[in-house]
Amino acid sequence: MSWKPITEPTLTNLLDQISFNEQGLISAIAQDEAREVLMLAWMNREALSETLSTGRVCYYSRSRGKLWRKGESSGQEQHLLSASLDCDTDCLLLTVQQKGVACHTGRRSCFYQALTPTGLTNLTNPDVDPTNLYGTPPSS
Amino acid sequence: MSWKPITEPTLTNLLDQISFNEQGLISAIAQDEAREVLMLAWMNREALSETLSTGRVCYYSRSRGKLWRKGESSGQEQHLLSASLDCDTDCLLLTVQQKGVACHTGRRSCFYQALTPTGLTNLTNPDVDPTNLYGTPPSS
Repeated sequence: MSWKPITEPTLTNLLDQISFNEQGLISAIAQDEAREVLMLAWMNREALSETLSTGRVCYYSRSRGKLWRKGESSGQEQHLLSASLDCDTDCLLLTVQQKGVACHTGRRSCFYQALTPTGLTNLTNPDVDPTNLYGTPPSS
Repeated sequence: MSWKPITEPTLTNLLDQISFNEQGLISAIAQDEAREVLMLAWMNREALSETLSTGRVCYYSRSRGKLWRKGESSGQEQHLLSASLDCDTDCLLLTVQQKGVACHTGRRSCFYQALTPTGLTNLTNPDVDPTNLYGTPPSS
């Protein structure tokens, strides 16, 4: 399975059907082929347009206020396999091929803290040292 | 696997570690035991507290402006199996036992519209007639 790029005029037509929020964003859940949920991030219209037309996942970083081509600094790219939209047209589910780890802490998935009767418990340890991903301590 | 209720003082301690957004909400992804992503919804502190202490999933309905005990009108309840928090502490991943369907359209998952080169394509048909879930046409 590989991504079939979405081109005009379908691309604009699809983007027009998305309910971006008041900040112009839509949430996107990334899940891998084994259905492990890796992360949730946000896209603006430009990021989603780039993602759908190239198959290389691009988010919008709310903290940096700009497009975030996943893996551009860490090499941990996401390649799109499929994408679906929910019933409210305000959330996307992406199936991705994750190169390496998704989380900036060096873990495969960002959801590594279990909520338990004794508090937060780490479910996994980092697969890679985050300083090897970014060279400097990571920010989210 | 069944949910072990989280009680005080751990409950308050956990809730204090959550980064609720400026509206006092956190996003929550619900995934079933087969790892199918069913839906994304929102919780406020009260909804999350109730969910963690009872094991019955309770969201906050942004459209209705009140707690939304999933299944309270449709019978399609969600029972919590596990919960984890992401690295930014602003998104939850819930593993749930879904009674019936999660989507108000009568489908198992809310993510039923594929984004394809020819536009939006329905991946699934309703398992149940939504008028049988609610008696009246559903609102989200």
